[in-house]
Amino acid sequence: MSRWEPNARGRLAQAALDLYQERGFEQTTVTEIAERAGLTERTFFRYFADKREVLFGDQTMLEEIYASAIANAPASAAPIDAVATALETVVPVFQERHKLVRQRQAVIAANPGLQERELLKGALLTSAIAEALRRRGVIDPAASLAAEVGVIAFKMAYAHWVSTPDEQDLSQLIRESLNQIRVMIAGQ
Amino acid sequence: MSRWEPNARGRLAQAALDLYQERGFEQTTVTEIAERAGLTERTFFRYFADKREVLFGDQTMLEEIYASAIANAPASAAPIDAVATALETVVPVFQERHKLVRQRQAVIAANPGLQERELLKGALLTSAIAEALRRRGVIDPAASLAAEVGVIAFKMAYAHWVSTPDEQDLSQLIRESLNQIRVMIAGQ
Repeated sequence: MSRWEPNARGRLAQAALDLYQERGFEQTTVTEIAERAGLTERTFFRYFADKREVLFGDQTMLEEIYASAIANAPASAAPIDAVATALETVVPVFQERHKLVRQRQAVIAANPGLQERELLKGALLTSAIAEALRRRGVIDPAASLAAEVGVIAFKMAYAHWVSTPDEQDLSQLIRESLNQIRVMIAGQ
Repeated sequence: MSRWEPNARGRLAQAALDLYQERGFEQTTVTEIAERAGLTERTFFRYFADKREVLFGDQTMLEEIYASAIANAPASAAPIDAVATALETVVPVFQERHKLVRQRQAVIAANPGLQERELLKGALLTSAIAEALRRRGVIDPAASLAAEVGVIAFKMAYAHWVSTPDEQDLSQLIRESLNQIRVMIAGQ
């Protein structure tokens, strides 16, 4: 039962997302996910704590990528530039999985409980980014503000990117969102 | 049992917040809240659906104030100015209840479940503000961006205001937060 299965994690994630879309998240069982992927439940639980983890399991990886990208930004980079660079660092992760990301977003949009979870994860990500800035010596409120504004720019860009059929450049959309925020409050 | 009690709502809210602080939110019952306020449980349930409502019951009122303040902003006001004006409209509500607001914040900070609820309420408020802007003819992404940035400025100002012992001017702090955001991304 514990033999190695090629790309088991990817197959399980794809099977889960297909089933969540076809039947709804609540109506799908781990047994069905494993069956669809041609794997065992035991294999499922080697990769995911539960069926919700399929949707939110990348959180820790993302936090680590953001934190290290911010730590490695040039010492001279302004806080918001360090955040923008970190956000762009993660873009390939999303671009490579465009179909999976869009399926995930549709599943979350259809379920209020999952929307709450997504919101909470977003807040935790903002905190992780602010913390990474503080470790660079940026003091509050600048660290929190840069993290909040950066995450908003990302969220707006991501929402646009995920809802458009043709693949746009997510990095470009993030820069455009930041620019829109700048123009918007410049006249205030 | 249904006789009118002067300021029953206020007395119940104060008793509840005192008990949540003394014993913790989870450990407090509605029976104890009513007893502390010198009122009946029946009176409690005339004002609040449950003990969590004591902390989050003002949400609808706030959404309505924001929406009408945005609707009534001068036609010439830029989206972010309409939002800033709306945020300042609500300031007296907080200023008048400084002690209660600080108690509420301490109770929420001590309980992860309540923090999640607060986060969700904040997201709903952001949506309500964006919707009020769209009713003014502001199109997305400008409406969502103005709402998100405005709420961030408010959250930062509010966090500072609630954590300082001497009463500062919350309106002034909101304007300062918006200014900090402007300066922060101006160089980007």
